[in-house]
Amino acid sequence: MRLATLRTSTGTVAARLDGDHYTLIEGCEDLSELLCEPDWTEIAAAAAGDVVPAARAELATLLPAPGKVICAGLNYATHIREMGRELPEHPTLFAKFADSLTGPYDDVVAPAEDPMLDWECELGVVIGQDAYRVTEAEAADHIAGYTVVNDVSMRGYQRRTGEWLQGKIWQSATPVGPVLVTPDEFDPEHAAITTKVNGRLMQEANTGDLVFTAARLVAYLSTIITLRPGDLLLTGTPGGVGLARDPQVFLRPGDVVEVEVDGLGRLENHIVPPRH
Amino acid sequence: MRLATLRTSTGTVAARLDGDHYTLIEGCEDLSELLCEPDWTEIAAAAAGDVVPAARAELATLLPAPGKVICAGLNYATHIREMGRELPEHPTLFAKFADSLTGPYDDVVAPAEDPMLDWECELGVVIGQDAYRVTEAEAADHIAGYTVVNDVSMRGYQRRTGEWLQGKIWQSATPVGPVLVTPDEFDPEHAAITTKVNGRLMQEANTGDLVFTAARLVAYLSTIITLRPGDLLLTGTPGGVGLARDPQVFLRPGDVVEVEVDGLGRLENHIVPPRH
Repeated sequence: MRLATLRTSTGTVAARLDGDHYTLIEGCEDLSELLCEPDWTEIAAAAAGDVVPAARAELATLLPAPGKVICAGLNYATHIREMGRELPEHPTLFAKFADSLTGPYDDVVAPAEDPMLDWECELGVVIGQDAYRVTEAEAADHIAGYTVVNDVSMRGYQRRTGEWLQGKIWQSATPVGPVLVTPDEFDPEHAAITTKVNGRLMQEANTGDLVFTAARLVAYLSTIITLRPGDLLLTGTPGGVGLARDPQVFLRPGDVVEVEVDGLGRLENHIVPPRH
Repeated sequence: MRLATLRTSTGTVAARLDGDHYTLIEGCEDLSELLCEPDWTEIAAAAAGDVVPAARAELATLLPAPGKVICAGLNYATHIREMGRELPEHPTLFAKFADSLTGPYDDVVAPAEDPMLDWECELGVVIGQDAYRVTEAEAADHIAGYTVVNDVSMRGYQRRTGEWLQGKIWQSATPVGPVLVTPDEFDPEHAAITTKVNGRLMQEANTGDLVFTAARLVAYLSTIITLRPGDLLLTGTPGGVGLARDPQVFLRPGDVVEVEVDGLGRLENHIVPPRH
């Protein structure tokens, strides 16, 4: 199944993508709300509400209200090795917040405060049921599905101190979507992932290169804290970000950044100047 | 006003502390829910529900559902200077999650995975209305009040990588409370703050020593992201944590840790072994 959160004239509604149209999951405002139902797969599969052609659907932030957004850094083996580093024993982890997320085709504001606006294509993992102290083998049962994330980063703020958080949580700057794809339709360990900026290929990798897979991250984090339905995990980005290029490249108003994971879909976001 | 979240036989309820008893704010499950009402001060002041003697009240996590918990590190000037460092130009910021929080008198589990369990007394700041791009002078209007936090830290995990998050978010390990004190009853820039472990004084400072005050943190963060009612900010800890002592001291099952901010109240938590 492919699930999304659509904008309506009065708010949002959860929906199931059926080929070229969305079927509304009536009574359910968004995917965060749907995933909190223990029988969410049955509810989503049985939905038979109004139909909206996909070409006319307006997609909202996939998950408007995740309780946690936890992100891994330094997780693609090829990129770690090409930087001359050893593969890490433990994942590097930082956070985002629900307010940091935005829709798959929404504009992203280039803040006046930080000219070092950068992209990071990532595989997103959405939790489907409580996970506390689960093994890597058990982790799959706790994953609702997968999505695409552009972990947009304000590098100036990210590097102001040793802790990256303040460069990672800018308001409505992290596109997520377009849909959640359930595990029966997607193999998270063999998917091509790319970033293009103004049509030029900037990042190209395969999720098979992840040091900490989705299942391993779920198990690792579940030793520490309970993962809840609708929580979002980001699995890190491969080489090719703007900060690491020579010369460096940063996003500016007018740029278009596309992030795609083969089998999940594509984000396309226009960079715009600050609103006044 | 002094506000709290109390446990009941069926769940929780928000309450106002009136001297030696709590007056229940009926129809309001907890302080997170109360603060989302635009007229929460009027609702809280007018409440005239059942009364519970303070001595018999059981206090829950003050804020069960903050959308954000954002923490400052390295923020007490005396401690920074005694470590031989310059005062920072920018705050060091990291996150916790709602699931990491626990009640002011709840037991804290010493995890089997990390023997380096440490304390950090902190002044907590609770947001009372949306704050986006507010100045330091405007920030006060967006603060609902203040509370006490023990930013319990698993130093082994905190130091596994450069990002502290994984040592800071352990399940139900960060005591918050006992009450929220509104700004008319508390001066956040002149309050004694202490930690005792088994009755021995381990940290002693004054919030007047903060480099980034509550108002300055609100203004700084609001440039980046919208702070929402019920969001919780932690302002950092002074010298005297277990990791920095010679010899190092860590918390073990059987220990009792008390954190107090003069004018706000005191947390008292027993360290217990893992449940099996």
